[in-house]
Amino acid sequence: MEKGFEVITRTTVPELDSILGKPFQVLDDGFVRLIDYLGTDASIVQAARVSYGKGTKKVREDRELIRYLMRHRHTSPFEMCELKLHLRVPMDTWRQWIRHRTASVNEYSTRYSEAINVHRKTAAHEWRLQAAQNRQGSEGWLDEKTGEHFSQQELDLHKLALQIYEERLTAGIAREQARKDLPLATYTEAYWKIDLHNLLHFLKLRMHPAAQLEIRSYAWIIGQEIVKRWCPLTWEAFLDYLFEALVLSRSELEIAKALIAGDNEKGIRLAQKLGFISDNTTTVKRNLECREFEEKLHRMGLKIPWLKKTSP
Amino acid sequence: MEKGFEVITRTTVPELDSILGKPFQVLDDGFVRLIDYLGTDASIVQAARVSYGKGTKKVREDRELIRYLMRHRHTSPFEMCELKLHLRVPMDTWRQWIRHRTASVNEYSTRYSEAINVHRKTAAHEWRLQAAQNRQGSEGWLDEKTGEHFSQQELDLHKLALQIYEERLTAGIAREQARKDLPLATYTEAYWKIDLHNLLHFLKLRMHPAAQLEIRSYAWIIGQEIVKRWCPLTWEAFLDYLFEALVLSRSELEIAKALIAGDNEKGIRLAQKLGFISDNTTTVKRNLECREFEEKLHRMGLKIPWLKKTSP
Amino acid sequence: MEKGFEVITRTTVPELDSILGKPFQVLDDGFVRLIDYLGTDASIVQAARVSYGKGTKKVREDRELIRYLMRHRHTSPFEMCELKLHLRVPMDTWRQWIRHRTASVNEYSTRYSEAINVHRKTAAHEWRLQAAQNRQGSEGWLDEKTGEHFSQQELDLHKLALQIYEERLTAGIAREQARKDLPLATYTEAYWKIDLHNLLHFLKLRMHPAAQLEIRSYAWIIGQEIVKRWCPLTWEAFLDYLFEALVLSRSELEIAKALIAGDNEKGIRLAQKLGFISDNTTTVKRNLECREFEEKLHRMGLKIPWLKKTSP
Amino acid sequence: MEKGFEVITRTTVPELDSILGKPFQVLDDGFVRLIDYLGTDASIVQAARVSYGKGTKKVREDRELIRYLMRHRHTSPFEMCELKLHLRVPMDTWRQWIRHRTASVNEYSTRYSEAINVHRKTAAHEWRLQAAQNRQGSEGWLDEKTGEHFSQQELDLHKLALQIYEERLTAGIAREQARKDLPLATYTEAYWKIDLHNLLHFLKLRMHPAAQLEIRSYAWIIGQEIVKRWCPLTWEAFLDYLFEALVLSRSELEIAKALIAGDNEKGIRLAQKLGFISDNTTTVKRNLECREFEEKLHRMGLKIPWLKKTSP
Repeated sequence: MEKGFEVITRTTVPELDSILGKPFQVLDDGFVRLIDYLGTDASIVQAARVSYGKGTKKVREDRELIRYLMRHRHTSPFEMCELKLHLRVPMDTWRQWIRHRTASVNEYSTRYSEAINVHRKTAAHEWRLQAAQNRQGSEGWLDEKTGEHFSQQELDLHKLALQIYEERLTAGIAREQARKDLPLATYTEAYWKIDLHNLLHFLKLRMHPAAQLEIRSYAWIIGQEIVKRWCPLTWEAFLDYLFEALVLSRSELEIAKALIAGDNEKGIRLAQKLGFISDNTTTVKRNLECREFEEKLHRMGLKIPWLKKTSP
Repeated sequence: MEKGFEVITRTTVPELDSILGKPFQVLDDGFVRLIDYLGTDASIVQAARVSYGKGTKKVREDRELIRYLMRHRHTSPFEMCELKLHLRVPMDTWRQWIRHRTASVNEYSTRYSEAINVHRKTAAHEWRLQAAQNRQGSEGWLDEKTGEHFSQQELDLHKLALQIYEERLTAGIAREQARKDLPLATYTEAYWKIDLHNLLHFLKLRMHPAAQLEIRSYAWIIGQEIVKRWCPLTWEAFLDYLFEALVLSRSELEIAKALIAGDNEKGIRLAQKLGFISDNTTTVKRNLECREFEEKLHRMGLKIPWLKKTSP
Repeated sequence: MEKGFEVITRTTVPELDSILGKPFQVLDDGFVRLIDYLGTDASIVQAARVSYGKGTKKVREDRELIRYLMRHRHTSPFEMCELKLHLRVPMDTWRQWIRHRTASVNEYSTRYSEAINVHRKTAAHEWRLQAAQNRQGSEGWLDEKTGEHFSQQELDLHKLALQIYEERLTAGIAREQARKDLPLATYTEAYWKIDLHNLLHFLKLRMHPAAQLEIRSYAWIIGQEIVKRWCPLTWEAFLDYLFEALVLSRSELEIAKALIAGDNEKGIRLAQKLGFISDNTTTVKRNLECREFEEKLHRMGLKIPWLKKTSP
Repeated sequence: MEKGFEVITRTTVPELDSILGKPFQVLDDGFVRLIDYLGTDASIVQAARVSYGKGTKKVREDRELIRYLMRHRHTSPFEMCELKLHLRVPMDTWRQWIRHRTASVNEYSTRYSEAINVHRKTAAHEWRLQAAQNRQGSEGWLDEKTGEHFSQQELDLHKLALQIYEERLTAGIAREQARKDLPLATYTEAYWKIDLHNLLHFLKLRMHPAAQLEIRSYAWIIGQEIVKRWCPLTWEAFLDYLFEALVLSRSELEIAKALIAGDNEKGIRLAQKLGFISDNTTTVKRNLECREFEEKLHRMGLKIPWLKKTSP
């Protein structure tokens, strides 16, 4: 039986091998390091083709197949690739990170060892202002002058917290308890292993402008520095079909269709009926969904008919 | 501390309680029965609001919040609801079903007990033809006359397979081995428990026209008869934002934008550049992605400029 | 087909219904509240029996069946029950909790809302000392006099951290960033939903003496106050077969067998050969595995033959 | 920052590289082929040590650390290794295999391609008899003479089923429907990727004598031919602490303790009280748990005091 079988060698990606172990800096003292990997674009194709078996007579091009899989959300072949990273991340960022349950994790233990004595510091120009519309976002920056005050205050707090931590240890207090008042900005480290399908899901959410700046910085580094080198065809398809795709709901499509047909009156009527806008005589009040939709209309090159009479 | 806390009673959905245990027939001898459930639309809202905590001053309407969560793929609140079904499904359909790994399953054991002696039968008018374009689909029907032959042949095969199975058992052969040649069409039963988020993912894939008819029949029953009664706001949002949404890739958006702007020449040029069409002098050859895209253009009310010179 | 089917009502556990919403206090300001549940002991039996189908002629008692399932690690029927809790937990405890990836979680968002302004405080007599042998544990207590100093210092730190947090907010700094230096002892809240199988796994690890005191306190409350009321037969079987079971490795069994047979010399020889002890002329050096094994021997009522010449 | 970092090369296991792609035959026409892998024993140690961080002053030996992790069920470091296999398995075995939900799977699609036209055949001496005690097991063999009849009958059925399948295809019936009556013994193929922790769980259950012979054959091949070469220290620890461990429940421990102390009367009294045995004047009736316990007593070298008066 062994006759018919091809000889196999492990998948290797020279572009990745050359950066194995290299720390890509993120934030002031964080990093992402590639430790190991399994598979590449070719492994996705290989796994997909077992599904197609001998039936596939005409050889599809790898790129076309990967794009097909991504387009149709055939996600299982992307699980055939695996990435293992070594991370240094502030604990408050890690709190978001760890919510992705599909990864394998070994985190530095501050029960077993002394905490890493480094905290995420904020430079005077890095303090962000609360967003006005988006309750869970930030926009714009605090003036640097005021920022200086907060940065100095932050340094003092870090110093104090660390001092108290060390005083506790010196007194013999257990590490597991001494650590309890470390700032959330304290760095932690971890090995983090995840398959490509779940990694792309992580990246889609965390590279998004709505993600918090800190985790977004890590996500872009992982995407641009590692995934792009590792599985270039998948990365391209990911950007095209997932990350930069435009999704129209049934309601949005209905309105857009009217606008495409040039029937602005119908578009406005539909927007009212679907609750996107409410007409208050002279000005139009748009809900959150409507404001999000307007951005999509803009991407399609469509004019927003209700905007001319919108309140400022 | 107990002062500030509200008294709680379990979430109950009277519309569901009235169908508990009722078998909804699927195929010739399959069924879906609702056994139990946890939560409802209100539980999703409750879970989402813990994230928003005391900060939420203005009370958002439940419907609007659920639509917001669905639109932005905030999936975790939907995990707070759980459904438990009793199913009877042919084994070849079950082979597809079980690929959804996020459910809890207890299946009828043919190691422990004798196999269910019922097989999925195909009526003379139910034989489907292999799709021409889609290698993994069917389209149209075999003529009923020929169908009669295959239906009779099928009955005979079922009878023979069952007879052999029983002969083996009578001879004392272990059930775990005797079952080995039962037809894939043999029915099996299972308890299947899944949370609402993962159920919606299941339904999105399995209610889709590209899903095989058999599993599609089950999916629609679960959706229309159970989920719609259970979480009506979520069901509505699911249809609007997930199931009937229109997704445009970056490339498709580029072409669509040109067509919306009325620049058909640019649309065609882009379609060529992006590999959607290739011009062979008089006729246009479209790839699979292009044919899928044309359906989207149709939904947007856009004309397909390259179609006038397409080969039949 | 509907004829043969039994009418169903939802599983209800009156003992649980009477404590729905009741906060069980844990630590100084934490709590566990039962919000909802699905199933009970009877649901486990029901799910297990579908596997046994019609083949089961003799009705096994529920208790015996549940014990059988637990003993043989037939875990899937226990997944048929689901628990939903509302928790208030210090963030450094939550960091351990969230490592259990099989639960559904909605956590209070300090991006969206202001942080809960309560921190886990340590009373003067609650400071624990680092364990000597176990690098990741604690044993014994700091004297209360010194404890007073640390408790006051802690209060001051909490106050300062909160003050800085609020100063940042007042200056308009985004909540997502202002929170970065809150102490790990800050309380958070979450809805946490998990099936019984995975909950028992959580309890097995977190009720264990080696678990940190804080999370252990939560685990015991969940076990004793909720699971015991919810699924009493399962709880009993869990304690008997999982939590209080004695596990002997192949090596340990070999040594134990010699000791049971009264052949102490052979026991010692095996312990040496297997690396448990190394004889240094007059005293015996035991490795960590050996010390753990001695506790097992003690539970079996076996004397430890090498102890007579052990170093103090 | 990059200064302090070590240069990294990928983990490689020469013993595995030399068998990459080699099909290990299982059953009459099945196989297991190693396609790729990530990590090895050293990766487990590396991941565990991040938890211990700089705090680990004394360098523990790798072997001892791996044994410690296995003994204490610290499972996460074992997730850092990953195995990818190519399998050919009869569908009725695959039905059991696929119940392990923690793997990534791409299976050969009989919607897309024609089914593999090979079925698991049973030789005349391979027909197993239903076990008397164990409802879900087999024991002993059918006489070869009778076996010949069943083997011939099986061949005829396979031939007929295949013929009908092909007749359907020839008539244009869709592959997704034509396959519906293939025997469960039809072979399928898949890529199967799983981390080492979950693989060991799979092996623990499927290498067990209670597992069905067919899947057991695959499990042992994977264990002995692949895992043992891949992570020899882990394999050794797995056998010692998991696979060949002896687990005593609280009740069993109580009885065993009495027997170890030589108090047979107390042992019998406890066994009665705990429901293991019921005394019917002259003979003793033992329940299933008791019979399982007796095997454990045997492994410990303890006599069974109630056996002298047991019914045959």
